[in-house]
Amino acid sequence: MVRVSFRDIGLRYTLSPYEKPVAYVKPGGLIVVEVEDASSGQIRKPGDVRDRGRIPFGNPLVGPIYVEGAKPGGSVIVTIEDIKPTIGQGAIYFSDFTERYLTEVPILRFMRTAFPYRMKICRIEGDTVFFDGLKLPYKPMVGTIGTAPYLEVESVSSSLLPGRHGGNMDIPDICPGSRVSLPVFYEGALLYVGDVHAIQGDGEISGTAIEMPAEVALRIDISEQGLRWPRIESGEEMMCIATTGSGRSFEDAVRIAFLELALWIEERYGIDRFDGLMICSIAGKIRVGNLWSLAAKIEKRYLDRSL
Amino acid sequence: MVRVSFRDIGLRYTLSPYEKPVAYVKPGGLIVVEVEDASSGQIRKPGDVRDRGRIPFGNPLVGPIYVEGAKPGGSVIVTIEDIKPTIGQGAIYFSDFTERYLTEVPILRFMRTAFPYRMKICRIEGDTVFFDGLKLPYKPMVGTIGTAPYLEVESVSSSLLPGRHGGNMDIPDICPGSRVSLPVFYEGALLYVGDVHAIQGDGEISGTAIEMPAEVALRIDISEQGLRWPRIESGEEMMCIATTGSGRSFEDAVRIAFLELALWIEERYGIDRFDGLMICSIAGKIRVGNLWSLAAKIEKRYLDRSL
Amino acid sequence: MVRVSFRDIGLRYTLSPYEKPVAYVKPGGLIVVEVEDASSGQIRKPGDVRDRGRIPFGNPLVGPIYVEGAKPGGSVIVTIEDIKPTIGQGAIYFSDFTERYLTEVPILRFMRTAFPYRMKICRIEGDTVFFDGLKLPYKPMVGTIGTAPYLEVESVSSSLLPGRHGGNMDIPDICPGSRVSLPVFYEGALLYVGDVHAIQGDGEISGTAIEMPAEVALRIDISEQGLRWPRIESGEEMMCIATTGSGRSFEDAVRIAFLELALWIEERYGIDRFDGLMICSIAGKIRVGNLWSLAAKIEKRYLDRSL
Amino acid sequence: MVRVSFRDIGLRYTLSPYEKPVAYVKPGGLIVVEVEDASSGQIRKPGDVRDRGRIPFGNPLVGPIYVEGAKPGGSVIVTIEDIKPTIGQGAIYFSDFTERYLTEVPILRFMRTAFPYRMKICRIEGDTVFFDGLKLPYKPMVGTIGTAPYLEVESVSSSLLPGRHGGNMDIPDICPGSRVSLPVFYEGALLYVGDVHAIQGDGEISGTAIEMPAEVALRIDISEQGLRWPRIESGEEMMCIATTGSGRSFEDAVRIAFLELALWIEERYGIDRFDGLMICSIAGKIRVGNLWSLAAKIEKRYLDRSL
Repeated sequence: MVRVSFRDIGLRYTLSPYEKPVAYVKPGGLIVVEVEDASSGQIRKPGDVRDRGRIPFGNPLVGPIYVEGAKPGGSVIVTIEDIKPTIGQGAIYFSDFTERYLTEVPILRFMRTAFPYRMKICRIEGDTVFFDGLKLPYKPMVGTIGTAPYLEVESVSSSLLPGRHGGNMDIPDICPGSRVSLPVFYEGALLYVGDVHAIQGDGEISGTAIEMPAEVALRIDISEQGLRWPRIESGEEMMCIATTGSGRSFEDAVRIAFLELALWIEERYGIDRFDGLMICSIAGKIRVGNLWSLAAKIEKRYLDRSL
Repeated sequence: MVRVSFRDIGLRYTLSPYEKPVAYVKPGGLIVVEVEDASSGQIRKPGDVRDRGRIPFGNPLVGPIYVEGAKPGGSVIVTIEDIKPTIGQGAIYFSDFTERYLTEVPILRFMRTAFPYRMKICRIEGDTVFFDGLKLPYKPMVGTIGTAPYLEVESVSSSLLPGRHGGNMDIPDICPGSRVSLPVFYEGALLYVGDVHAIQGDGEISGTAIEMPAEVALRIDISEQGLRWPRIESGEEMMCIATTGSGRSFEDAVRIAFLELALWIEERYGIDRFDGLMICSIAGKIRVGNLWSLAAKIEKRYLDRSL
Repeated sequence: MVRVSFRDIGLRYTLSPYEKPVAYVKPGGLIVVEVEDASSGQIRKPGDVRDRGRIPFGNPLVGPIYVEGAKPGGSVIVTIEDIKPTIGQGAIYFSDFTERYLTEVPILRFMRTAFPYRMKICRIEGDTVFFDGLKLPYKPMVGTIGTAPYLEVESVSSSLLPGRHGGNMDIPDICPGSRVSLPVFYEGALLYVGDVHAIQGDGEISGTAIEMPAEVALRIDISEQGLRWPRIESGEEMMCIATTGSGRSFEDAVRIAFLELALWIEERYGIDRFDGLMICSIAGKIRVGNLWSLAAKIEKRYLDRSL
Repeated sequence: MVRVSFRDIGLRYTLSPYEKPVAYVKPGGLIVVEVEDASSGQIRKPGDVRDRGRIPFGNPLVGPIYVEGAKPGGSVIVTIEDIKPTIGQGAIYFSDFTERYLTEVPILRFMRTAFPYRMKICRIEGDTVFFDGLKLPYKPMVGTIGTAPYLEVESVSSSLLPGRHGGNMDIPDICPGSRVSLPVFYEGALLYVGDVHAIQGDGEISGTAIEMPAEVALRIDISEQGLRWPRIESGEEMMCIATTGSGRSFEDAVRIAFLELALWIEERYGIDRFDGLMICSIAGKIRVGNLWSLAAKIEKRYLDRSL
């Protein structure tokens, strides 16, 4: 087993092929990654604020992790084995980013007003996350996981953006037990991980979820299969992810995700793509990650003629 | 109990204040509505096609139903009591609309090609819908329900469009047991209903679901509460719906839905709107209806301090 | 010559096939239409405000005008002969609509603030429009012109929306000397006109331009040619218009407009559609009307091999 | 005068802070940059095709050029002095990118068809560009100019994307005589230039314009003024640019561009921002660059009370 911690290697805010690997892992191997939270650890107790002067970026990652044998044109398969909070708490907060996330147009600045600052430290105990007096279930997930991007238009990427390489997808289904397949563009895949949430809603509408520092255990495999988009698979469901980076509308992201899912169904189950599209129209699900990312999914049992 | 059937009053393709009521119902009353399927009954057996020459429109409705006592500025509350298939089957099919739905841009026409025609008749037996050899659960829902629209920009509406008045929302949560509140713009609300699905996937990606003629039982109530958007409430969840008609992007529809949901949470639970937005960011869900409609929702148990 | 004035027939806020014609015009005939301004005449002098209580809608029209001989499936060709201000002034104002127009998301309401009210009466003298101390050229145009809509999804329409039937396009090229061809869906075309601007910027970004009551002289012709979208033609340029109603993104509206323009070039000049698309890529122009409407155009001289 | 040519330093496909400067220029200095065309020189004569196997990327740039004294938080001002074609011709071609550009959704692949390949070599003589038998005016422009990006979400960028740092804006107004101001994020600004067009239509709808290798003469200045978006200024017009990268819709790009333009008008002319917005609503123009980029502009003479 390999271990790597942000404490030793620092925080990264891009997914990039230009950086030296911080760890090496063999196919079939397990790696435990200790990640900082999305505030870069600036928000730990009441009164803390994000200090952009000191740390201008958000969403720090650990990486790149070099996967031995991963080749451009193939893929890397990451099984999320476990996610553990490291300090027994997480935080949700409005940032200067919240305004933009909620309206895109800088209308509040134009009006000389601003979104109020607010922050909550949330204790995590067993299966429960405490938000003031409310109890929410602990449903840990990895918000950002991706390889060094390369293909046109997506290129080197901010840790805030999703794309064909994965990245900041914020899909709650990337949780213990699920398997994420990512396209590989460089030798060694150059995997990045971070942005763990104790629980997150669809769309992460205020811009953050319960952000927590955590220890993530990942099983790594490789495949020669080429992928156009990340795939997520869990026991009962299979999925295909699309993102709206680069001027793509959400509607088009839904269309792309279902067309790709129909092709995956054809490949896996021998169901013709047009029938597959009909099945998606009847039983497909859409999961919204953040406002740039979503996933189309289908339950496997609906595809099995023997049931 | 009032009964009204498309057999007696014909098919309507707009939600309009210009038509005479086809039925009258009192607050607290039950009305059973027999609706035709979205193909206007043109697709019943293998080989059938949509004949646009004879029926240019899709998605026929029954209405307007006059709700006694419903006043402009108030709302009408419709509880879905029951949905029954009337001929034991439904159909899913590609139409000339499918091309546009899947790409919006008329690229196939420009390329002098076309989406292939395909159609499946699907038998419904008990809890099961048969799609070729596959078994899918029977999850009936009302695709289109709305009042005569009035407010600016939405005005009189095609039965294909969603809006503040409801309309073609295609939200699977509008199913037996749920309660839909719709804004009222005209005396009597002028309710329209149709487009029942035996089961539908998020986004209804091929343009149709399992479309079935059905009998729908609705309990009707009225309220003086004004609404900006339709609200759906079921046992465990409450929701708020937004639509993308009129050039609104899906991302903005997500934003609007969650802002409205936070206001509803404030109104119902006394949780301040900014906290409510955080709770949505942690535990909210997005349900995609079709490519013009979605709903934001939250489970009630997350809002209750006494649990 | 036929004359019709809003003073005699009242103000209409929808384009609808359900209303009785207010005037009849023969092919080749001239009709002079007196229209009210977009505020329904509520803003005439300093201190005036839009009173939604009295007039909830904006953008009143005159119509429907019945064009003799116009048949469904054909088109009506309207030449703008003249536009005259009737009271020597116009007005620009922020309305409650401005907020939505500028951000779509109701973020100001959520923040319990509002866009400030502001209004300017602008004198028009000869070729000049006075905005406080600034002089702007008088460039009159017809903001809204359309036929009674019919086809799916667009149906009966608010006077605020553009669509395949024309409507609220706000394209400054619809000015004296230009020819607008509109698809006909009903016997008599059922033409509506209104929303004259003394001058308007691309996108009409604050929600109104210099709105003025006016007298508009229109020459009416008919054609058997079917149209998918309105076409505008002036001496040196030809155009094709697309709209973003019904969840269509602006990017897709640009794509549709240019694909249609390439088809028009093929039809008119015998230049193959793929070459035509290249020519658009080299020399096409986009004119943004409002945030739901745009037009693609090309100068005719670029299409003529004999030059 | 400094000279730098792609022949000596190779082709770059990202704007990145990680690369060594290829030239140094002092404030007030002139630099002449020889750039390759967007096909990386692969399309020179009939029969040539883009060979993605050899060169996977498009839109090569020259850079980074280090501007002495340029500081993060300030800006760099680039005056386009001259653009000269180097081989007397340009080319326009469909690429595998064309499909995606025209529909975004991979519908042609799903249909197992493809956009036809087509290519034209276009001779340039004096003021004329020849496209088969058609004559078009020679209107040279710089498609891509930008600094090394840095701020969140935009980070290191593909040469195909526009952003706050400039990049692939494809705005025809960036032509001889105009002045482009770009925000600086790193010491030395790290300027990149490329993608020259002999003439380009709005939206560059087939994905390429008349792409030509060229020699570009640039005068470089620096300023301490911070910028949120690139500004372009020419004799009679001033502009402000917005881009749709990262899931931003075109409508929002129009809104952002005009809000920023109103703020610029306030700063330069002392006209209050709300009045400025009205003036934009009356006389502003929108220029569409490509499907990710646009600019809002206003003629200066409309802002001058002394005229």
